[in-house]
Amino acid sequence: MPRPDLLETFANPYPGRPYEIEMECPEFTSLCPMGGIESDAEELKALEGGAPDFATMYINYVPGDVCVELKSLKLYLWSFRNDGIFYERAVNRILDDLSAAVKPVWMEVVGDFNIRGGIKSVIRARVGARTPAEK
Amino acid sequence: MPRPDLLETFANPYPGRPYEIEMECPEFTSLCPMGGIESDAEELKALEGGAPDFATMYINYVPGDVCVELKSLKLYLWSFRNDGIFYERAVNRILDDLSAAVKPVWMEVVGDFNIRGGIKSVIRARVGARTPAEK
Amino acid sequence: MPRPDLLETFANPYPGRPYEIEMECPEFTSLCPMGGIESDAEELKALEGGAPDFATMYINYVPGDVCVELKSLKLYLWSFRNDGIFYERAVNRILDDLSAAVKPVWMEVVGDFNIRGGIKSVIRARVGARTPAEK
Amino acid sequence: MPRPDLLETFANPYPGRPYEIEMECPEFTSLCPMGGIESDAEELKALEGGAPDFATMYINYVPGDVCVELKSLKLYLWSFRNDGIFYERAVNRILDDLSAAVKPVWMEVVGDFNIRGGIKSVIRARVGARTPAEK
Amino acid sequence: MPRPDLLETFANPYPGRPYEIEMECPEFTSLCPMGGIESDAEELKALEGGAPDFATMYINYVPGDVCVELKSLKLYLWSFRNDGIFYERAVNRILDDLSAAVKPVWMEVVGDFNIRGGIKSVIRARVGARTPAEK
Amino acid sequence: MPRPDLLETFANPYPGRPYEIEMECPEFTSLCPMGGIESDAEELKALEGGAPDFATMYINYVPGDVCVELKSLKLYLWSFRNDGIFYERAVNRILDDLSAAVKPVWMEVVGDFNIRGGIKSVIRARVGARTPAEK
Amino acid sequence: MPRPDLLETFANPYPGRPYEIEMECPEFTSLCPMGGIESDAEELKALEGGAPDFATMYINYVPGDVCVELKSLKLYLWSFRNDGIFYERAVNRILDDLSAAVKPVWMEVVGDFNIRGGIKSVIRARVGARTPAEK
Amino acid sequence: MPRPDLLETFANPYPGRPYEIEMECPEFTSLCPMGGIESDAEELKALEGGAPDFATMYINYVPGDVCVELKSLKLYLWSFRNDGIFYERAVNRILDDLSAAVKPVWMEVVGDFNIRGGIKSVIRARVGARTPAEK
Amino acid sequence: MPRPDLLETFANPYPGRPYEIEMECPEFTSLCPMGGIESDAEELKALEGGAPDFATMYINYVPGDVCVELKSLKLYLWSFRNDGIFYERAVNRILDDLSAAVKPVWMEVVGDFNIRGGIKSVIRARVGARTPAEK
Amino acid sequence: MPRPDLLETFANPYPGRPYEIEMECPEFTSLCPMGGIESDAEELKALEGGAPDFATMYINYVPGDVCVELKSLKLYLWSFRNDGIFYERAVNRILDDLSAAVKPVWMEVVGDFNIRGGIKSVIRARVGARTPAEK
Repeated sequence: MPRPDLLETFANPYPGRPYEIEMECPEFTSLCPMGGIESDAEELKALEGGAPDFATMYINYVPGDVCVELKSLKLYLWSFRNDGIFYERAVNRILDDLSAAVKPVWMEVVGDFNIRGGIKSVIRARVGARTPAEK
Repeated sequence: MPRPDLLETFANPYPGRPYEIEMECPEFTSLCPMGGIESDAEELKALEGGAPDFATMYINYVPGDVCVELKSLKLYLWSFRNDGIFYERAVNRILDDLSAAVKPVWMEVVGDFNIRGGIKSVIRARVGARTPAEK
Repeated sequence: MPRPDLLETFANPYPGRPYEIEMECPEFTSLCPMGGIESDAEELKALEGGAPDFATMYINYVPGDVCVELKSLKLYLWSFRNDGIFYERAVNRILDDLSAAVKPVWMEVVGDFNIRGGIKSVIRARVGARTPAEK
Repeated sequence: MPRPDLLETFANPYPGRPYEIEMECPEFTSLCPMGGIESDAEELKALEGGAPDFATMYINYVPGDVCVELKSLKLYLWSFRNDGIFYERAVNRILDDLSAAVKPVWMEVVGDFNIRGGIKSVIRARVGARTPAEK
Repeated sequence: MPRPDLLETFANPYPGRPYEIEMECPEFTSLCPMGGIESDAEELKALEGGAPDFATMYINYVPGDVCVELKSLKLYLWSFRNDGIFYERAVNRILDDLSAAVKPVWMEVVGDFNIRGGIKSVIRARVGARTPAEK
Repeated sequence: MPRPDLLETFANPYPGRPYEIEMECPEFTSLCPMGGIESDAEELKALEGGAPDFATMYINYVPGDVCVELKSLKLYLWSFRNDGIFYERAVNRILDDLSAAVKPVWMEVVGDFNIRGGIKSVIRARVGARTPAEK
Repeated sequence: MPRPDLLETFANPYPGRPYEIEMECPEFTSLCPMGGIESDAEELKALEGGAPDFATMYINYVPGDVCVELKSLKLYLWSFRNDGIFYERAVNRILDDLSAAVKPVWMEVVGDFNIRGGIKSVIRARVGARTPAEK
Repeated sequence: MPRPDLLETFANPYPGRPYEIEMECPEFTSLCPMGGIESDAEELKALEGGAPDFATMYINYVPGDVCVELKSLKLYLWSFRNDGIFYERAVNRILDDLSAAVKPVWMEVVGDFNIRGGIKSVIRARVGARTPAEK
Repeated sequence: MPRPDLLETFANPYPGRPYEIEMECPEFTSLCPMGGIESDAEELKALEGGAPDFATMYINYVPGDVCVELKSLKLYLWSFRNDGIFYERAVNRILDDLSAAVKPVWMEVVGDFNIRGGIKSVIRARVGARTPAEK
Repeated sequence: MPRPDLLETFANPYPGRPYEIEMECPEFTSLCPMGGIESDAEELKALEGGAPDFATMYINYVPGDVCVELKSLKLYLWSFRNDGIFYERAVNRILDDLSAAVKPVWMEVVGDFNIRGGIKSVIRARVGARTPAEK
């Protein structure tokens, strides 16, 4: 089950400057809530839980007063491991949990999911607005 | 024959946020309606139907009230397998069928077709407008 | 249904020299005989036939008295399009049909199949022996 | 000699939607009108004609009432094979011939020429304007 | 817990020919039995179980009388998901389980594990001998 | 300890033209102030100092009256080798030191740090504004 | 028409040492003798000659008493430009002409031809034997 | 010594259309005026001249009334071979010489220099403004 | 100073099977004992110690009775950080220390060092012999 | 003029072990003795000397009693800069000079020259024999 309570933050060391932090997390895995596009009911009875999903999560933000602590982010992402969740919900949930924790000027979460049923999916969501001076 | 009736949708879990969904479908195949640039009449008599075309279809959209269900999209794309259809028509047809089913804020379909006659073709079509806040 | 009767040959223009011919055919497609690892019974009822498989076929040989004619090879490979066949059988069948048609000194068929169930499969089969002078 | 008379068109199946067609033609070859940067007079006397040039031609457009027919485009590009023509003229000539034939909303021709004298050249020319809603 | 009982086989369709089957499984994940090189005791208390490991498993073999059924292999590999196991043991265990199930002429299992502590590890193990006629 | 006193400059040879200088420095290394995401207290006692971090630093700027001298920049970056410093602070510190030394029209520092805890981080900071005529 | 009379040689500067010379010629073009797999009779009437083929020719050899002069090789390869010739014949013909001209210890010619009919072909031929000391 | 007098031009064949010419010149070499970041005084005494620098020069422009002749450009770039010159000066000097010769609507010169002291440098300079209709 | 005393081992879980372990360590850094090819005496006085070297170390072995423990290997490699050592000595020293600790059937150490003076160096050393059954 | 007198050596630190040293030198440049395949007499009169050649030199060896000192190798390779020399002679000359200086167990020199006349050339020469235990 997602554990946003694990997220920790530290004070932004350069709060007056709108710089960007980008994190690439290639080891995200969760379970599909209904077995998934590639699984049928029979095969799931053989195992405890649903079919696994795999994704690379890209988390980009302009920090406000605090930054997310890296080790706590790792633990938070691990907490999806045995959770059944849809792609669209996972990406938006991470965005909600992280933006609640760090209150960024701007934040984007991109989930790049592995091929399922011969189709590769990417979900992109964001909150806030990039400041005018940004490229 | 294209089967838009196979397309199913589910309620968008984050309807108030203009996030993006991108799907890459590398296993699209259909038949050329007239045998194709690389085939002549003789060789087609030897087989039932026209010369095959192959493409990767990229389907990108900002969902409105609903999202397309992934397994139903896979079945819909399979339904072109033995259909004779021109490149331009296939891409625009998929855009019409999908945008009718999900009524997106914005949708783009890109068909990247394999080399024929030493020429590689890409067709890009879209409906709706990206919202101002998007990158 | 595979159509080995479509295969045509022409006389090897340099029969005394053990040279090699390598062909890469990235547009092989067939159907899975039982719906396939990623499909269940319900979704197949929606369409006529099984779930499609996709592969690149590599066909390499040292010709004997004849070479395979390229256009006839293309038509032969197209004839698997609506045939339900397992990976292992498809590769060995192509090797059988082609080696019967061209009686090569040596021939290898490699089928490199697209990801199914998160697993990518390659099947390699061959007949005859490379001559001692080969690299 | 360039043969614009070979170009054929067909009615645009979706005339009301400003979609894009991109074609990549990696097998363009012509002759250099003066022997070229890498050739001297002596060596050209040994052969009939000038030194060959090679390029990939990229042809991108938003169709108006008609689209260019792919097989006729292939034949038109072949017609430069034994023609002596400068890079700048070849790219602009193709743009002139094609835009006269299809009267596009917007068209771009890019010639990406092979290394000559240790220098690689790319020429980009276009007519018309992209519509405001385009990316 | 690894579930070799999930593995199923089917009769080799070409038993007399020593052909090869290669499978690439990029979605293998298990847990580290002691928290792993990158984790300390505190952070693991926050979650149920150890730190996750990720690998691509390559399984290559020359079949004897039977082949492994692909869907059952997928389920078998999923069964390591919440199992605490060392790299060296995981690779050798998979080799033991699979070679017991299919009794191959030759089999190789290669585990290509993600970076831990700035170090990437690959483990290769095999049983049986390639036949003399093989490449 | 960072040594901004090592930075030297030379007069910009084309001060009236707003051109850009981009430098890629793939050999940046420092120490983590608290042992880092992948290290625990025990292992650090075995060595003098913290766990090492590695990054590629990208330094891009539009020079004003002076340019940074390349050899002095190399020595300045070496001076972080045995310094314990957080990612966010390192990138912003380099930006502060360099912009103080060369007073650029515009400057950007990007730190692309190696994977730690399965997560790759990039930090981007900048001062000044690109002039209107820039791309 | 192929012009082996254009080939010139120069004395091998290190005749006692069995070293290797490898040449990659990406600009080989000829015509297909019968219009080719992708052309029909109609379209060829529109132009003077057959459908063009394109290949990269790799020419590798251990020189004996002489080496081939590079500019003369370029002219020789140009002489195939308007010649109708099959793939297998072109590669073996070049091997015959070049080995007659330079009498190498060992020579290999590899023709890597562009995709035709969705199939890519490579032809490899050689004369002589590599000396025992070679890798 | 740079030889701008070697530059020759020819009349732009399409003067009314603002098309672009891009040239990539990977074989630029000059000498460092002071021995360079990687050399000391001793080692330079052993040779006549300074330490060599290597770069790829990218020259892009929208021609006005004339275009630069390719062979003369090659000779002009060769003339830097034994000249001692700083990176910033070389790029701006080439921009000055070329823009004086061809009076372009817009011109950009980019020098991408090889690694020195573990640092890779790129210098970008330009004159004129891209016309509004450009991409 | 290299600290072989930090190396720890654990019992090989499959001692009867000659399997291989390959480790890629891209974060090796040490100091050059004499300032290095790219540094002169002046610049080194400005810092404490010599010029840094960077390498990726590849460590491959067939274990005997024990395997090297991964975290202890990481610490051992860190211990070269402030040690002045030549390339050839570093690679052979690591091979000596590791083979003394794990007494492998076969072991290879490859040091792939970053460009210095425009030259990239790789050093490969090994002890023991691969067993006959290995590839 | 090549300056083998600049080559210096140092005692092999591990003389009893047949390890390998590989060096990649991408900045080799010399002049063509006769202007080269791409130049004619006129253009060379405009400059002092012949047309430049560029290559990457790969130098691999198993050291005997001594190793080549890296900085002296760099100076030796620089000494070809203004020397007119054929490809085949340059590679064999470097092999002669280096093997005379270091008396290796085995040495290989590979010259990978830039495209000239649309043709890329690689020359490989070696002396000595790899020891039986080598891969």
